[in-house]
Amino acid sequence: MNPIDWKVTAADGEARAGVLTTRRSVIETPVFMPVGTQGAVKGIRFESLEQEMAAAIILANTYHLFLRPGVDVIRQFGGLHQFSTWDRSILTDSGGFQVFSLAALRKLSEEGVHFQSHLDGSAQFLSPEVSMEIQAALGSDIVMVFDECPPGDEGHEATRKSLEMTARWAGRSKVRFDELQAVMNPVAIAPGSDISSKQALFGIIQGAGHLDLRRESLERTVEVGFDGYAIGGLSVGEEKPVMYEVLDFLAPQMPAVAPRYLMGVGTPEDLLEGVKCGVDMFDCVIPTRNGRTGSAFTSRGKINIRNAKFAVRSEPLDPDCTCSVCKRYSVGYLRHLYLAGEMNAAILVSHHNVAFFMNTMRQARQAIKDGRFQQFHRDFIDKLTHNQPASV
Amino acid sequence: MNPIDWKVTAADGEARAGVLTTRRSVIETPVFMPVGTQGAVKGIRFESLEQEMAAAIILANTYHLFLRPGVDVIRQFGGLHQFSTWDRSILTDSGGFQVFSLAALRKLSEEGVHFQSHLDGSAQFLSPEVSMEIQAALGSDIVMVFDECPPGDEGHEATRKSLEMTARWAGRSKVRFDELQAVMNPVAIAPGSDISSKQALFGIIQGAGHLDLRRESLERTVEVGFDGYAIGGLSVGEEKPVMYEVLDFLAPQMPAVAPRYLMGVGTPEDLLEGVKCGVDMFDCVIPTRNGRTGSAFTSRGKINIRNAKFAVRSEPLDPDCTCSVCKRYSVGYLRHLYLAGEMNAAILVSHHNVAFFMNTMRQARQAIKDGRFQQFHRDFIDKLTHNQPASV
Repeated sequence: MNPIDWKVTAADGEARAGVLTTRRSVIETPVFMPVGTQGAVKGIRFESLEQEMAAAIILANTYHLFLRPGVDVIRQFGGLHQFSTWDRSILTDSGGFQVFSLAALRKLSEEGVHFQSHLDGSAQFLSPEVSMEIQAALGSDIVMVFDECPPGDEGHEATRKSLEMTARWAGRSKVRFDELQAVMNPVAIAPGSDISSKQALFGIIQGAGHLDLRRESLERTVEVGFDGYAIGGLSVGEEKPVMYEVLDFLAPQMPAVAPRYLMGVGTPEDLLEGVKCGVDMFDCVIPTRNGRTGSAFTSRGKINIRNAKFAVRSEPLDPDCTCSVCKRYSVGYLRHLYLAGEMNAAILVSHHNVAFFMNTMRQARQAIKDGRFQQFHRDFIDKLTHNQPASV
Repeated sequence: MNPIDWKVTAADGEARAGVLTTRRSVIETPVFMPVGTQGAVKGIRFESLEQEMAAAIILANTYHLFLRPGVDVIRQFGGLHQFSTWDRSILTDSGGFQVFSLAALRKLSEEGVHFQSHLDGSAQFLSPEVSMEIQAALGSDIVMVFDECPPGDEGHEATRKSLEMTARWAGRSKVRFDELQAVMNPVAIAPGSDISSKQALFGIIQGAGHLDLRRESLERTVEVGFDGYAIGGLSVGEEKPVMYEVLDFLAPQMPAVAPRYLMGVGTPEDLLEGVKCGVDMFDCVIPTRNGRTGSAFTSRGKINIRNAKFAVRSEPLDPDCTCSVCKRYSVGYLRHLYLAGEMNAAILVSHHNVAFFMNTMRQARQAIKDGRFQQFHRDFIDKLTHNQPASV
């Protein structure tokens, strides 16, 4: 038995709709996973994610939770699900990306990464083995291998070196992961379910903007063998055409029999580009991060509620949106809350943004099932870029 | 027809339970009114106040809304209800208290108060007439007279002078209020309702800690005649015994045929002291203000979730609380969110605190109806102060 079940239920070009079942929930794909960095989705109560948005999976960050509250605390609660009370699926990243983007005084070796905590400067160490151990303690349902993430515009030679490290680390991740699964307490799953109660492990393909290296990384990752495959190292500073080129080249070559996950990307346009290329899973902080600065994603493009023209606007953020914020609140009111420094502005705009991302994926899913994804994609982009009325 | 209907449904000593009906909602008293200073209750969505807490009335601040977004904006939306989407009752204060606590360079005259906005230093003016005009534009259901609020420890002579100004301003407030009601658009109210569709106006009793002046202020306020009566100028720096003495002396003398409102007070203990003396309505920012600093009101006293002893505590903030936060989240998790700088900590603790205040009033109401308020009061205070287990 595998720790996940994966079925492609419809395809339209390279785009595909599927159902991913983990030991904790059934996830319809393509899916956007809200980011709960520190065990909470910023500004949004779990109740809203569950009841209104029907989110079946969120992401949490190993690096952050490792440093605070720490593994010991979460272990005492019985894992991140019990600690946070989110009882549907959780995917944890490996900590690698944050070590390379947040931590100070990194010292990289074959063994792993020594670094200083960005919180208190304390000396810390992460390696494939340690990352697997932390993620086992967190008890996430999908675990990511510990990888090295080079800058998006890294040269060929440096990228190759990094990629080889990532490949060796993938192997070590797998070994330690398997050891841990053998001794972990099983999680209760639905009777008659044909999946195991273990964690699943996803591999990560690196290679920056170099297609030959992406291809090589793909082969070496598949060689190790994982429950799912992720594209790492995109949206990390490279130009957008480079990202789209990599997606277009790589995604269709990834194993069709496993879920494909594009890490840390991106805008609604980026997500649909990924879906077009056959990606199934996405996560990104921008709906909540932008929500906190009053920037809303809408079907007519991005708007910033601080704009003076919104002062007496009684329309919702997005007249086409069905979320509880758009059904009730006007842009004028949200603008007032933002300018008045009320956290309710961040709460409401973040809510809308996450709902908009999830609804967009829901619509893409339906379009794939109906065999009209290409048209949906074109209409979506058209509306986004050309249909913005002068009055908005 | 009066703009409100007020019925005392049960009494127990001086304490009373009642039903206050405004043109927009039916309010069971004693009631705690959550504070929506700038047209939103900080960190709590209206949906939670409506659905979970069954709040029937909130308070909004004239001073803040006058300065931002300004009366013109709110008027264009048709009033504060339409602007904010809160469609139950709103009570607005007069702006007086904030002018005296927040604004700079105040210049007080018989006419009113010239001051500088605390936001941008702009020159502003408030008077009884202007305050009534703003509150008419906001369209609140209960309007407060414009009063002068002296410090809680003000001497006898200065308090008397201030009180006389307040009395003259009460008269002027009433005159302008009546003029405005005569020309205001009616609000749609339930057919067959025996109240008018107009705003209600409450008078305010001042007099600091001087009982003779409180008595005089009461008489002069009742002489003008209002729909309800408020006790102002408490919890503004005076010692707590002074506040309790004033409450004990003043509240029972206030007209029994009108609702009694204690402004800006206080802790759960203060609220129950007010109820004991016959007060019906309360508002205070402390449940949300304390919520933002991780301080929770519970049936066993106040706790600060930052405390290290809560790190692995799996119990809720208050095991006796039925709110959605206590039903789900542990103190350990809330502490983590707070220390991690997650706004969800403020959201969840504020929610609990407001729910706790409202539940306390609900229990007091029931105790009055059952004729056991005194016992309830004693048990509540006992538990709060003596029953705190060493482990919490």
